[in-house]
Amino acid sequence: MNLDALATPAVLIDRARAQRNLDRMQAAANARGVRLRPHTKTHKSPIVARWQLDRGAIGVCCAKLGEAEVFAHAGIPDIRLPYPLNPANAGRVVALLDRTHLSFIVDHPGVAAQWSDAMVRAGRQVDVLVKVDVGFHRCGIDPAAAGAVAMIAGVAALPGLRLRGLLAHAGHAYHAHSEDELRRIAEGEAATLRDLVARARAAGVAIDEVSAGATPPARFSLQQDGFTEYRPGNYVYFDRTQVSLGAATLDDCALTVMARVVSKPVPDRIILDAGSKTLTNDGARGFTPAPGYGIILRDGQPDHTLLIERLSEEHATVKVTTGSTPLEPGDLVRIVPNHSCVVSNLVDQAWLVDGDRVEALPIAARGRIT
Amino acid sequence: MNLDALATPAVLIDRARAQRNLDRMQAAANARGVRLRPHTKTHKSPIVARWQLDRGAIGVCCAKLGEAEVFAHAGIPDIRLPYPLNPANAGRVVALLDRTHLSFIVDHPGVAAQWSDAMVRAGRQVDVLVKVDVGFHRCGIDPAAAGAVAMIAGVAALPGLRLRGLLAHAGHAYHAHSEDELRRIAEGEAATLRDLVARARAAGVAIDEVSAGATPPARFSLQQDGFTEYRPGNYVYFDRTQVSLGAATLDDCALTVMARVVSKPVPDRIILDAGSKTLTNDGARGFTPAPGYGIILRDGQPDHTLLIERLSEEHATVKVTTGSTPLEPGDLVRIVPNHSCVVSNLVDQAWLVDGDRVEALPIAARGRIT
Repeated sequence: MNLDALATPAVLIDRARAQRNLDRMQAAANARGVRLRPHTKTHKSPIVARWQLDRGAIGVCCAKLGEAEVFAHAGIPDIRLPYPLNPANAGRVVALLDRTHLSFIVDHPGVAAQWSDAMVRAGRQVDVLVKVDVGFHRCGIDPAAAGAVAMIAGVAALPGLRLRGLLAHAGHAYHAHSEDELRRIAEGEAATLRDLVARARAAGVAIDEVSAGATPPARFSLQQDGFTEYRPGNYVYFDRTQVSLGAATLDDCALTVMARVVSKPVPDRIILDAGSKTLTNDGARGFTPAPGYGIILRDGQPDHTLLIERLSEEHATVKVTTGSTPLEPGDLVRIVPNHSCVVSNLVDQAWLVDGDRVEALPIAARGRIT
Repeated sequence: MNLDALATPAVLIDRARAQRNLDRMQAAANARGVRLRPHTKTHKSPIVARWQLDRGAIGVCCAKLGEAEVFAHAGIPDIRLPYPLNPANAGRVVALLDRTHLSFIVDHPGVAAQWSDAMVRAGRQVDVLVKVDVGFHRCGIDPAAAGAVAMIAGVAALPGLRLRGLLAHAGHAYHAHSEDELRRIAEGEAATLRDLVARARAAGVAIDEVSAGATPPARFSLQQDGFTEYRPGNYVYFDRTQVSLGAATLDDCALTVMARVVSKPVPDRIILDAGSKTLTNDGARGFTPAPGYGIILRDGQPDHTLLIERLSEEHATVKVTTGSTPLEPGDLVRIVPNHSCVVSNLVDQAWLVDGDRVEALPIAARGRIT
């Protein structure tokens, strides 16, 4: 099928760029002897997960059990959920253990004890890692708390659970204001984990795995010592935020939204048929966050005179900052979104692009929120 | 099925509240002799559309052809798209004309001429309305422009198109800061349309329909003269923004997200399993926009000590402003979202709730972006 035959808006994936992004990250991990376990949140596609495994990834991550069910069904043999699963879902976990090598995180003694009970009742064992808060202040135990090592030792002692090690996510890297701050975040995370690993081992707890992962600080994190595993997600497609965080160039961005001009009420305003139902209202982040809801490309080049100043659900209202544009209703543009992960989650299907040829890419794990 | 057996997060629709909301708006329209044509953007469900038709609605609105295809397939006999369809989609429009009474808007002479050509080639006629910009500055002709009446007359003269009248959307009502401003927006829209209708008729153009519609100003708009049709959408479920705009009370909000506490790393922070993949990052709007990503209900009552201060894709990070909460991992809460339309668009299925009993409500037109 040809690109210009697609109904718009359409989510396009440049296959060559995506695969080049995968090659580079795998090479960077290999160079440091760190195992790569990509997070699937960005592509939600077993097809793309296969590209990652074929290049050397040791498995994947999902956030939710519903996603893991899709990837396990597609034959992905090793799935980690860096998510604090609740034991209300024990039945689904037990079912998944028959289909894939599943592991997940715990960060709460009471929840860990409930998981232990559930696994003992089911006659099963499951791999877990203790989540450590390295500064994002979302989930995770406080590594500086008096009880941190005792909590880890407590999990290690629970029947039904096999403690594999520690896991962290430096999500605060998305809020860094400079290259230096990103480097300090990466160094701080590594130092925190090395220290906690040493204290846990000194207390007699075996720590085999130390897992971290986020795309923005990856270039710094992969220079640190102490990690056994890295879990970037966004790096497969990148987006405007990653460019602004120095993690990619615009030419690395593999996901674009092809949209059509549908109205031009006045010379300095055009309306595109992609709204928040395709791009979401996620703002751009980065060292110097840019206004608007994405970068508009014309013939592959950014047109900085076009500012997506407002999204309705099905409309992008674009201000032409120079007062006029040759674009007319019917014309096609492409948009590099602020955040590519959320775009994947909005469509049942994206399109893999090779030149002018396109091929459907089902987003099989889209919308699996439970 | 019972409510507490649902996997979380789950989108719940209180059937009694939703139907009461429909009853009230239908009664308000009937009282003024205005035809009600609800926008389906909020529910995206032919089942709910039937509730609306059964109460007297004369048809529905969709934004995109893909949505109209779903509703037409479900037997909805009259569908209007208040969206500037591009003639690239002429084949789909022609196919829909065999299945439903379809109409849409035009706001550009060149696009209208292309539609005329396409319809003449297909040997068909289609109903259109000219979109008028009443202050939102998205789509629509400028009613004050010198060529406004000539544009309308030009559309009326095109073969293949049957001009039905004028259509407006006061989307700027969402940005009103007070009850007075909302009233002025409603009065301004009505006055603008009455004036343009009079000028068009004076130029010999037949204007049979004058359509407006938006939930926030509905209580004022339905007091104005000159409208033949009103097209509210959000009123079926309402949300936190509508409460803040005075269009509803919290007890009218029929859509909530049931979420589970999955982590409590410190006493003043809990993590819920509903993130931007369920709630979106849409902020609250209204006269005094509140911070955070929704209102948390415990046992049906708002708990204002719980602030959803950040959403990740699968996590809500909740600050406990009083320092501690009895909520523990495993506990369930409900969230009234900032914006209910975008929540419907994120799930394949919501749940209709009657007391503790639930029943699946498929969101059949979810994600139909083209």
